[in-house]
Amino acid sequence: MNTIGKIFSVTNWGESHGKAIGVVVDGCPAGLDLVEEDFDLDMARRRPGQSRLSTQRMETDKVAIASGVFEGKTTGAPISLIIYNQDQRSQDYSDMMDVFRPGHADFTYFKKYGHRDYRGGGRTSARVTAGTVAAGVIAKKILRQVMNIAIIGFVDQIGKVSYHHDFQNIRFDEIEKNLVRCPNKSIAQMMEQQILDAMRDGDSVGGVVACILQNVPAGFGGPIYGKLNADLAHAMMSINASRGVEFGSGFQSANYRGSELNDPFVCAEGEIRTLTNNCGGILGGISNGMDINFRVAFKPTSTIAHRQQTVNQQGTIVELAAGGRHDPCVVPRAVPVVEAMAAIIICDHYLRNQTSSFNL
Amino acid sequence: MNTIGKIFSVTNWGESHGKAIGVVVDGCPAGLDLVEEDFDLDMARRRPGQSRLSTQRMETDKVAIASGVFEGKTTGAPISLIIYNQDQRSQDYSDMMDVFRPGHADFTYFKKYGHRDYRGGGRTSARVTAGTVAAGVIAKKILRQVMNIAIIGFVDQIGKVSYHHDFQNIRFDEIEKNLVRCPNKSIAQMMEQQILDAMRDGDSVGGVVACILQNVPAGFGGPIYGKLNADLAHAMMSINASRGVEFGSGFQSANYRGSELNDPFVCAEGEIRTLTNNCGGILGGISNGMDINFRVAFKPTSTIAHRQQTVNQQGTIVELAAGGRHDPCVVPRAVPVVEAMAAIIICDHYLRNQTSSFNL
Amino acid sequence: MNTIGKIFSVTNWGESHGKAIGVVVDGCPAGLDLVEEDFDLDMARRRPGQSRLSTQRMETDKVAIASGVFEGKTTGAPISLIIYNQDQRSQDYSDMMDVFRPGHADFTYFKKYGHRDYRGGGRTSARVTAGTVAAGVIAKKILRQVMNIAIIGFVDQIGKVSYHHDFQNIRFDEIEKNLVRCPNKSIAQMMEQQILDAMRDGDSVGGVVACILQNVPAGFGGPIYGKLNADLAHAMMSINASRGVEFGSGFQSANYRGSELNDPFVCAEGEIRTLTNNCGGILGGISNGMDINFRVAFKPTSTIAHRQQTVNQQGTIVELAAGGRHDPCVVPRAVPVVEAMAAIIICDHYLRNQTSSFNL
Amino acid sequence: MNTIGKIFSVTNWGESHGKAIGVVVDGCPAGLDLVEEDFDLDMARRRPGQSRLSTQRMETDKVAIASGVFEGKTTGAPISLIIYNQDQRSQDYSDMMDVFRPGHADFTYFKKYGHRDYRGGGRTSARVTAGTVAAGVIAKKILRQVMNIAIIGFVDQIGKVSYHHDFQNIRFDEIEKNLVRCPNKSIAQMMEQQILDAMRDGDSVGGVVACILQNVPAGFGGPIYGKLNADLAHAMMSINASRGVEFGSGFQSANYRGSELNDPFVCAEGEIRTLTNNCGGILGGISNGMDINFRVAFKPTSTIAHRQQTVNQQGTIVELAAGGRHDPCVVPRAVPVVEAMAAIIICDHYLRNQTSSFNL
Repeated sequence: MNTIGKIFSVTNWGESHGKAIGVVVDGCPAGLDLVEEDFDLDMARRRPGQSRLSTQRMETDKVAIASGVFEGKTTGAPISLIIYNQDQRSQDYSDMMDVFRPGHADFTYFKKYGHRDYRGGGRTSARVTAGTVAAGVIAKKILRQVMNIAIIGFVDQIGKVSYHHDFQNIRFDEIEKNLVRCPNKSIAQMMEQQILDAMRDGDSVGGVVACILQNVPAGFGGPIYGKLNADLAHAMMSINASRGVEFGSGFQSANYRGSELNDPFVCAEGEIRTLTNNCGGILGGISNGMDINFRVAFKPTSTIAHRQQTVNQQGTIVELAAGGRHDPCVVPRAVPVVEAMAAIIICDHYLRNQTSSFNL
Repeated sequence: MNTIGKIFSVTNWGESHGKAIGVVVDGCPAGLDLVEEDFDLDMARRRPGQSRLSTQRMETDKVAIASGVFEGKTTGAPISLIIYNQDQRSQDYSDMMDVFRPGHADFTYFKKYGHRDYRGGGRTSARVTAGTVAAGVIAKKILRQVMNIAIIGFVDQIGKVSYHHDFQNIRFDEIEKNLVRCPNKSIAQMMEQQILDAMRDGDSVGGVVACILQNVPAGFGGPIYGKLNADLAHAMMSINASRGVEFGSGFQSANYRGSELNDPFVCAEGEIRTLTNNCGGILGGISNGMDINFRVAFKPTSTIAHRQQTVNQQGTIVELAAGGRHDPCVVPRAVPVVEAMAAIIICDHYLRNQTSSFNL
Repeated sequence: MNTIGKIFSVTNWGESHGKAIGVVVDGCPAGLDLVEEDFDLDMARRRPGQSRLSTQRMETDKVAIASGVFEGKTTGAPISLIIYNQDQRSQDYSDMMDVFRPGHADFTYFKKYGHRDYRGGGRTSARVTAGTVAAGVIAKKILRQVMNIAIIGFVDQIGKVSYHHDFQNIRFDEIEKNLVRCPNKSIAQMMEQQILDAMRDGDSVGGVVACILQNVPAGFGGPIYGKLNADLAHAMMSINASRGVEFGSGFQSANYRGSELNDPFVCAEGEIRTLTNNCGGILGGISNGMDINFRVAFKPTSTIAHRQQTVNQQGTIVELAAGGRHDPCVVPRAVPVVEAMAAIIICDHYLRNQTSSFNL
Repeated sequence: MNTIGKIFSVTNWGESHGKAIGVVVDGCPAGLDLVEEDFDLDMARRRPGQSRLSTQRMETDKVAIASGVFEGKTTGAPISLIIYNQDQRSQDYSDMMDVFRPGHADFTYFKKYGHRDYRGGGRTSARVTAGTVAAGVIAKKILRQVMNIAIIGFVDQIGKVSYHHDFQNIRFDEIEKNLVRCPNKSIAQMMEQQILDAMRDGDSVGGVVACILQNVPAGFGGPIYGKLNADLAHAMMSINASRGVEFGSGFQSANYRGSELNDPFVCAEGEIRTLTNNCGGILGGISNGMDINFRVAFKPTSTIAHRQQTVNQQGTIVELAAGGRHDPCVVPRAVPVVEAMAAIIICDHYLRNQTSSFNL
């Protein structure tokens, strides 16, 4: 349940307001340079309180390497990464102790496990994505060093403002220059305003994160139930608040004919590639050597300051309004999570792919 | 790679034009009534040549039970289901032997495995979904008998004709009365015309399949990497030609605010439920007791009669036109496949869910 | 439950007296030459009725390749191997229908699954090892071609006659020259007599199979729960009637001191190896480059002609004597099964080992 | 590699001289009472320095619960258990930095991973069994509460002194009263002397641990590759220094005939049981309701003070003598490890067994 990956395998543990959260990364090949500072950048991109657009919970999210690394290199043993929680104000949540927040998983966890961890959502909290991001840092590092694979996420839509890119001519250098992580500066400003408006109203907005994977060679993935896009879809739907995922032409595919969408093969510089990339870089579940691209839809955060009617565990109608702690939009912070999940999947398939055929 | 499910586990084997295809279903509890006739209905709904809208390959797709059933009941041993291929005209495909069809997986299989099975696509063929449908019949039967769970798929869009339902007031009894499996009769006719037009042009159209799961109790699924929607998304992206999947409000979620999308909890007849169902019946990866619903996008079939330019294995430009064998739209035939994949996932989670908590 | 192997994965199905038995082998790399005749030799070594020492059930055990091979080479798709049952005299067993045979698994299957497949033991029958042997043929072929690994089993003990070898100076060419598969001709004759005596008495004898794996390179296996000897032990205990397994000095290890048992490292022709091999070729769960060796204990067959007292499903005391069908000793026929299980494990670890370290 | 169990799943991480070691236990049902003191007893039974018979490394081995428990009860979320290392004298080992200890896994780890963690063996150290014991405490607690299953290990042989019990009339209350954990007081004294003699000689001795599982109901385990004894064998061979495992009559089975070893079924107080227990409580891989018993052979510790000849990484011959740090016999300390591994396997099968059959 809490483990993902067949060869490069990540086990995630921890709750929002426990002592710590963490991951155990198993299957990382020996010999990779790894120090604790490697995690800082992506952890900072994910952490709450990183800008005026997000919740003010303060976590430095410093990653401690507790095993699997010796003298600066991975040893082949499992890598245990621990992030100690600092801002554990669990008393803050005591007013919600037996109330089911609309749109929130505290109801379903209660139904499944028969108990309630009211400390900031416990295991349901988006805080658990910090472990995912830490594991993703290792996967990204492997992929970059082994085959120069780059994994780049960005925000494609916030509320009603959409970037509508075509995965071409993206200004990657712009992404981290604005608070919403959109490659287009002026659209980014409009997106930012959507978040500020929601914040002002004690409300939240959703959005779409796009992701592009460069330099993935042809041949990753496999038939039937081991498809690369199926594993990526599983990974994306594992992220808190995601509601859908689409590859290449995605849901628009229904509006076109085969003759319009089929990507013609051409031969350029001795290598076969496609002229267009409507398939999003994956054919029959296997990468075709083109950029892989996909989009992930996120619903607005369920916890809002806005007054809502709901029931408590006894079924009594109650009114609920989460004080000042809510996060008006998690989409910009979801970008490193999307990247991390993609990196984990691609790294696992890279390792699995070592053994698909041989010349005997 | 070719196995799905942790407890209720399905291993799929076979190629389009080999002797047979099949599945091994492991983890089916002992004591289920099962005879070969149980498979007939869904196999007929999936098979090619079932109407004037699809390819004319003739396969009766009769399922043989080779193990795991004794005196009409499952024994707890693995159930081996075999479907012998009848229409093995592999000579038909010899003209495509070294040509890469635009939009088709023969290129990526060649890159991964270093060989080419030109007999109707071999393992890449949609024929392998017959095994999936057969396994799904067992899963459906378990779910229906154990907790009256019903799994109902229908066509929501074909080409540019969209049904735009809201997953409410669906005329389920209409679905199987028309060739495209849309619950609305007049829209079904328009959809049918989209397919006939494409067929006339030697072209193909895509579409969207919707699916609704009734009576799934609250509590199926799990945290982080074992989410029910993540497993369903993986399953849906495992189906040939699927390009995207969305749950409940899906990609539209980005356009609304939390206060609009959060499904308020109410208490009706002593049971807590939600007033709306924007979340599609799943919160935090765990079912909430409401109907589960999702939509799956399918691209148009890549193999078309329409003349296309492409390259062969040597990289030489060639023209390609698949004779009369192409299938103008697989979407209506994908309905039982979507249902089967959903049934397999839900059945697996039903069995996994036996052990989530206890009173000690 | 019925699948073994992480990358090279074997799913076993079928019952003693059903239509057929079989395996699906997933994860076999593409490009291996494979024809149906490849299976004949090992299937013949395993099949009943192969000599005057075993049961007279007649099965030719011809393996049919139903998928995964095209034009004589594996394609990377799952390989479905089917062995049709020929001698299905299920009426023979009707007298045992509700009687629990002492030492037999029909009792535990009944307790677990709530039903009884009285046709020759159904899933509990040693017949299911035919599928294992077929899968092992593929594994052996890969290992031999890729790194010249040889897997050689032989009989080390039958009843009270023990060969007491030291895994050195074994006359491998003698093994298949006698009916019991012991490398020493004169001991083989005494073993044969043990079996004939038991047969005459309507009784059965157990024994020990030894196995040696040559040319396994150092580095196969892994830490903690992925040890090569642990996986081999699991595989050996999966064989019907096995009661124990030991590696290298095995249970004798307790009688010696560290200074006596530690295998000294030496350097010969630039390569580090050990002078002795008390560890059986595995240190810390990882192969050390020496021959791997182990022994597997088998109890006497439980089904005997000899009259035994037992109870039926109602708990009533009954007398039982299995007519002429019993097998006095399965140990010689277990040799190819031991080899096959070892081959499957080593092949899986060979594939898993591709990714343990890299130079970045 | 570092994860065991399908439903009740344990991921083990950490090295001998890193910051900490630990396990993540996933799949523990919600609602189990659990506090940090629960771990103390078994951790004390395993830890080094517990008596004059073992190494003097001092570790209190206090277990910290970092997640998965809220208000004294398990939540269904993964339980992260962390044991901080205290006695990290890694400088102690610098003299062995590039020397391969005879009988030790530092050679094979070097061959597999291309590096050397000389700090007390790193991942190869028996220290990693502390995590296993911690996970086993949870499994034991579940089993005891749910079905009163007891798991009792004891020492059956040390060096040349053997207890030769028959798994009947064991004085369980004696086991923890002596330093070697043998149920027979006078034999325990002789065993103790074996260890003291070895210690005096700077040498080590091996032994055998026996284990008995009481009150396991009939029906745990499964066919072919999911056998309960196979999973137990895998678990036992996962323990450092184990060389073999046998169930019931084990390797002695070869010396008897079927008519002697078959356990007759009888009916007592309305329940079917066996008169003898030569099968060790498991038939066809499934528990039969009798006590399960098995024995595990351990070789003498490889690291000894006794002077030994070996080679270093360059292949040069060197002399080696591990100062005062060696452990003359790990067998008494292996008892809680054997119990823990058995508990993990039985707990996993208990959870898996919820779904084997149903009445529809």
